[in-house]
Amino acid sequence: MALLIACSSRAEQFAAEIRALEPGLNLRIEPNVGQAADIEAALVWQPPPGLLARLPGLRLIVSVGAGVDGLLADPTLPKVPLVRFVDPDLTGRMAEYITLQVLYHQRRMSEFRDLQTQRVWRYLPEPAASDVRVGLMGLGVLGRAAADALRPFGYRLRGWSRTPKTVEGVVSFCGPEGLDAFLAETDILAVLLPLTQETRGLVNRGLLGRLSRHGRSPLLPGPALINAGRGGLQVDRDIVAALQSGELYAASLDVFETEPLPAASPLWQHPRVVVTPHNAAESAPAAIARYALRQWRAYNSGAALDHVVDRTRGY
Amino acid sequence: MALLIACSSRAEQFAAEIRALEPGLNLRIEPNVGQAADIEAALVWQPPPGLLARLPGLRLIVSVGAGVDGLLADPTLPKVPLVRFVDPDLTGRMAEYITLQVLYHQRRMSEFRDLQTQRVWRYLPEPAASDVRVGLMGLGVLGRAAADALRPFGYRLRGWSRTPKTVEGVVSFCGPEGLDAFLAETDILAVLLPLTQETRGLVNRGLLGRLSRHGRSPLLPGPALINAGRGGLQVDRDIVAALQSGELYAASLDVFETEPLPAASPLWQHPRVVVTPHNAAESAPAAIARYALRQWRAYNSGAALDHVVDRTRGY
Repeated sequence: MALLIACSSRAEQFAAEIRALEPGLNLRIEPNVGQAADIEAALVWQPPPGLLARLPGLRLIVSVGAGVDGLLADPTLPKVPLVRFVDPDLTGRMAEYITLQVLYHQRRMSEFRDLQTQRVWRYLPEPAASDVRVGLMGLGVLGRAAADALRPFGYRLRGWSRTPKTVEGVVSFCGPEGLDAFLAETDILAVLLPLTQETRGLVNRGLLGRLSRHGRSPLLPGPALINAGRGGLQVDRDIVAALQSGELYAASLDVFETEPLPAASPLWQHPRVVVTPHNAAESAPAAIARYALRQWRAYNSGAALDHVVDRTRGY
Repeated sequence: MALLIACSSRAEQFAAEIRALEPGLNLRIEPNVGQAADIEAALVWQPPPGLLARLPGLRLIVSVGAGVDGLLADPTLPKVPLVRFVDPDLTGRMAEYITLQVLYHQRRMSEFRDLQTQRVWRYLPEPAASDVRVGLMGLGVLGRAAADALRPFGYRLRGWSRTPKTVEGVVSFCGPEGLDAFLAETDILAVLLPLTQETRGLVNRGLLGRLSRHGRSPLLPGPALINAGRGGLQVDRDIVAALQSGELYAASLDVFETEPLPAASPLWQHPRVVVTPHNAAESAPAAIARYALRQWRAYNSGAALDHVVDRTRGY
């Protein structure tokens, strides 16, 4: 029995970490699949479509990412347990990213950056955290980690999710019927939703125009958007239009409809947009290796797997 | 009896907030001092030197800032209780600023900004918070607030102070004899010291060269400096030199030897320096008004004042 690593990036790093933890393991790295029948488990990130279907002995798939929309888009994906990567390294990095970007916009850092490039020393009043309403779209393990990180600063936290969720210190809204009220009371929107048929393109002009309609946080020039979920959740050109119209004050985007973000995108050089290369929660190879081996051992011993994807739900 | 507001900026804002809270108060705004003998208390920020000495009835001075080095530099400062402003609004804003800048450098945001301006999508590995040692210089009320804000992210916290301090989760060093060991194990140095004869110019080339000598955090390109204390603590040209030599990877500076920072300073346009205009903890006028009135009432009722400055110590 063997473990296949089929990852479009960092495959050798994952292999080195797995070998360090379990030297005796029969490890294959795509495209060197070897005897396909031997392979019982696969650690994957953007594997070639159809590849996994050609492994007759496959019993377990572990996704390097927390988002599995890409894998589920392959109709040939074998119907074996699909586990997505969620561990403290991932949730910690995501909580850092969301906190960093919320603080960045609350503290008007885009404007201070602009002033700095012009060598201008100018005071700008900044809202207190207690006057800023942060809306978390998605209250799964990542959304809850973000709430836990933001809570001590005193932000007024709101959350929106598909089904009702109870999170300490978060005023929660749910379903399509709760979306309008959620958006109307959100100054900084942080998107951590899974990409599903229901959420694709959700962050569009219409949604952005509904942000903080019930009055803005004093001193904040307008609503801000953070997307560290999936690029397919947003409509890039609608974000550009909302920034141009002033409906949106600023944005921090880690994901895009097309990745890498095309050089022609106006998002690259907008003065109040922070672009990062889908690394909000790029976990350490060692953490991914540990997690994959834990799943493999759980599978072999009949123990419970972590974070098995519900395919009808899509995450 | 009257309260004088002698502030080089925001005087009218403070007055409006104080009037809203206590409409009957006899309030004067410098330079309209009126009958000097009436004035029993003064709320000050950079008052004209000698002004306070000309108020024979003065019994209480409240400083708008937490740092009082400027006031103490006036040899004519009356020997009445001098209270510095320290409240949850101030400590919260300072904790936000330190957390924002620590996250910014841990997550290599200066480099991502550079890549963004070049429209380059490139992954840079980032250290986990648990692999980054943050050293807090100053463990007073601001240093402890910063420690409280940073702790949940998992940073390895060190602290240095004049006298021994015990802060939860912080490995503490103290005095000149503890400085070397503190610096040798610090990746990101955050300076929150008061400015005194002992601390003036402390953040110089020699000190910066001693940072993280006992091995660096993996993935962090080098040590980073954050100064949100006082400009007089640092030697601006030494920071520039340390950045040029590579001893320093990056810096976030809210304070400078000369403020406003002169247009000719190379700090303005260094790609890995964040310049902010001494607003790390620019408190809301309402919070300052509330605090000043609380001190005034405490004085009048004989109750204890908050944060009275020890003039021999200098803070």
